[in-house]
Amino acid sequence: MSAFSRRRLLGWTGAGAAAVGVGAVAGCAAAPAAPGPAQRVVPFRGEHQAGIVTPAQDRLHFVALDVITDDREELRALLQRWTAAAERMTAGAETTPGGATGGNPNSPPDDTGEALGLPAASLTLTFGVGASLFAKVGLDPSLVPPGLAELPRFAGDQLDPALSGGDLCIQACSDDPQVAVHAVRNLVRMGFGTTAVRWSQLGFGRTSSTSTSQETHRNLFGFKDGTNNLKAEDPDGLRDQVWVPADARPAWLAGGSYLVARRIRMHIEIWDRTSLVEQEVIIGRTKDEGAAFGAAAEFDPADFAATDETGAPRIAVDAHIRLSSAESLGGVRILRRGYNFVDGSDGQGHLNAGLFFIAFMNDPQAQFVPMQRALSTKDVLMEYIEHTGSAVFACPAGLGEGGYWGQSLFEA
Amino acid sequence: MSAFSRRRLLGWTGAGAAAVGVGAVAGCAAAPAAPGPAQRVVPFRGEHQAGIVTPAQDRLHFVALDVITDDREELRALLQRWTAAAERMTAGAETTPGGATGGNPNSPPDDTGEALGLPAASLTLTFGVGASLFAKVGLDPSLVPPGLAELPRFAGDQLDPALSGGDLCIQACSDDPQVAVHAVRNLVRMGFGTTAVRWSQLGFGRTSSTSTSQETHRNLFGFKDGTNNLKAEDPDGLRDQVWVPADARPAWLAGGSYLVARRIRMHIEIWDRTSLVEQEVIIGRTKDEGAAFGAAAEFDPADFAATDETGAPRIAVDAHIRLSSAESLGGVRILRRGYNFVDGSDGQGHLNAGLFFIAFMNDPQAQFVPMQRALSTKDVLMEYIEHTGSAVFACPAGLGEGGYWGQSLFEA
Repeated sequence: MSAFSRRRLLGWTGAGAAAVGVGAVAGCAAAPAAPGPAQRVVPFRGEHQAGIVTPAQDRLHFVALDVITDDREELRALLQRWTAAAERMTAGAETTPGGATGGNPNSPPDDTGEALGLPAASLTLTFGVGASLFAKVGLDPSLVPPGLAELPRFAGDQLDPALSGGDLCIQACSDDPQVAVHAVRNLVRMGFGTTAVRWSQLGFGRTSSTSTSQETHRNLFGFKDGTNNLKAEDPDGLRDQVWVPADARPAWLAGGSYLVARRIRMHIEIWDRTSLVEQEVIIGRTKDEGAAFGAAAEFDPADFAATDETGAPRIAVDAHIRLSSAESLGGVRILRRGYNFVDGSDGQGHLNAGLFFIAFMNDPQAQFVPMQRALSTKDVLMEYIEHTGSAVFACPAGLGEGGYWGQSLFEA
Repeated sequence: MSAFSRRRLLGWTGAGAAAVGVGAVAGCAAAPAAPGPAQRVVPFRGEHQAGIVTPAQDRLHFVALDVITDDREELRALLQRWTAAAERMTAGAETTPGGATGGNPNSPPDDTGEALGLPAASLTLTFGVGASLFAKVGLDPSLVPPGLAELPRFAGDQLDPALSGGDLCIQACSDDPQVAVHAVRNLVRMGFGTTAVRWSQLGFGRTSSTSTSQETHRNLFGFKDGTNNLKAEDPDGLRDQVWVPADARPAWLAGGSYLVARRIRMHIEIWDRTSLVEQEVIIGRTKDEGAAFGAAAEFDPADFAATDETGAPRIAVDAHIRLSSAESLGGVRILRRGYNFVDGSDGQGHLNAGLFFIAFMNDPQAQFVPMQRALSTKDVLMEYIEHTGSAVFACPAGLGEGGYWGQSLFEA
């Protein structure tokens, strides 16, 4: 009834691809001359997980999951199956060699099929664990890394428990939303009975570049966002601020990073009624060019000491870029990887829109906490935004051949 | 503080573009050699509204609005301002020549700015009115077109009033979600005090091609969707099934069409646990190729009379493609233009996912109603889906130079 077939990779015939292992698929998929962006394959394995310093793709599907078993071995078996499927999907293949239509036709397919025919589209899948996981499956409390300590309540927080926390997270980024959604949906499907969706968030229009090769995009306040972001081309910055050091304790997170997620609802209607001058003063940059006040171009360094003819600071003392700057925070920086979102309407005549903030760092208590404490108490932007969701996950280092998600933790 | 600037169009300098009217912008924007898809400009004015037979773009932002004034002139003035802004945005420009950063810096900007630097990305904006509009602003009841009659309640309907109806609708389609969201957000902003968002829906991965130049995409059940759709290259089909005839009454809708929207939640978790055979029997097509049973290729015609060796129909009597076929419905067809969606999670461990069905036709009571009645009572697929939102809008014909949205109605 159904022909045996596989997802078509860059013009390979289904039959040709079928006999080849995933490693080979990933290797060859990048081979044809000048593949378009949709064809790009990001390696799944490596020193660090993909999806952190990978140049930020344009679309996001982020899911936080509850573990609904207390059986650690059951969870570990799922993580092994997830890893195999994730590796295949990031190479542009279906979850299993049988995939969507090539298995036993009298069984549910191993793959839901909506990505059949679609290329890899730079898919990355990034895995993390939350503090609530450890007790749930009986992991030794000494394995809880210090960065998973609960965040303090910040001024103005309006956190919805249904949009916060989670035992596990998977961040899917791709240049094609259907590819990102397909990946999350299939991992969720495979977890049925072992994990359940706690919350999930779609995003578009990446608002932070993570590479100097990328142009800065704009958030829904209309400003370029993430100009001063930590970028892939700054190895010293990544070493100092993003990657957990090799000698850190617990050892299972060495080479990994912490992911802080905050769902930030923007009251765009109120913002839209403020003047251009006020918007720019609040941010500390021009809206058009994105240059810091007193500078000419977007990437010119901000001069926080500069004053105008009256002696007042050119960049206001409570400007967003000053409060969040390394200069104000004792050298602290983070690697941001956020996305814009619109989640329908709020039932009160407005769009339910905002920024899904994602940032990676090696010490949330020393990096995110002081930054958010400064912003939540001093940033005028707080009048226009509201944090409605929050979560912190520990994302282990990248995997070598044969390794699986969470292995360093489960075999610690 | 802010340089005067305009959205950059295809390498034009801001200063060059600023002095040129919108008509010229639209004309010239397509001029450079071999523009990429992101650069494509779809003409705003023409015999019919864009966004109906326009090759379906990949992303959707659909908004239904309530009119919150009873002052018809106030609404008409808004429609005129909307039209000017919509025409500019579909050409890749900001809402006004002053736009995001070029107006009075002490006033709120005319444009929210998040599309600064982005090209037109095939943006179309399609406008419609719902039955509830007429009484609200005192329009003559004889102007209510027959196709806006309330839809019957279909078997299994689980309609949420908060996701249904609306006095006005705007369908924004683009290849870039940020461009579609920017357009809707700015029109909503301009309507503040006159209109309010009733509901809004984002979509991705268009599930119906509207042109033979497009490949068929897949819905979240993993099947190619819309293979047999009415397409732009079928002028007789469009004349008979989509466009309201020139001699129809009321005359203001001549050359227009009706838009039927249905938010269809898919219970993907249940679907994912059915066998490939069962999925294919329910649909009547193979999952891989999308060929009707008994046919070899996707676009081979379905033979509904064919039987297998036992004498049973090859395509089941209740197969989805049979029930929705022109053959079963006395020749009725519709032009579908739906999108996949994932709206986070449902709070019960599942993704809130499905298909946002949009279809255009010239007689909903004679086209959509019998089709949906057949599907809602006989289609096994109903076990896996649930209609959670519903709306019908009358979309007037396209605009000539100087015309504005709703003019034929407001000046009838």
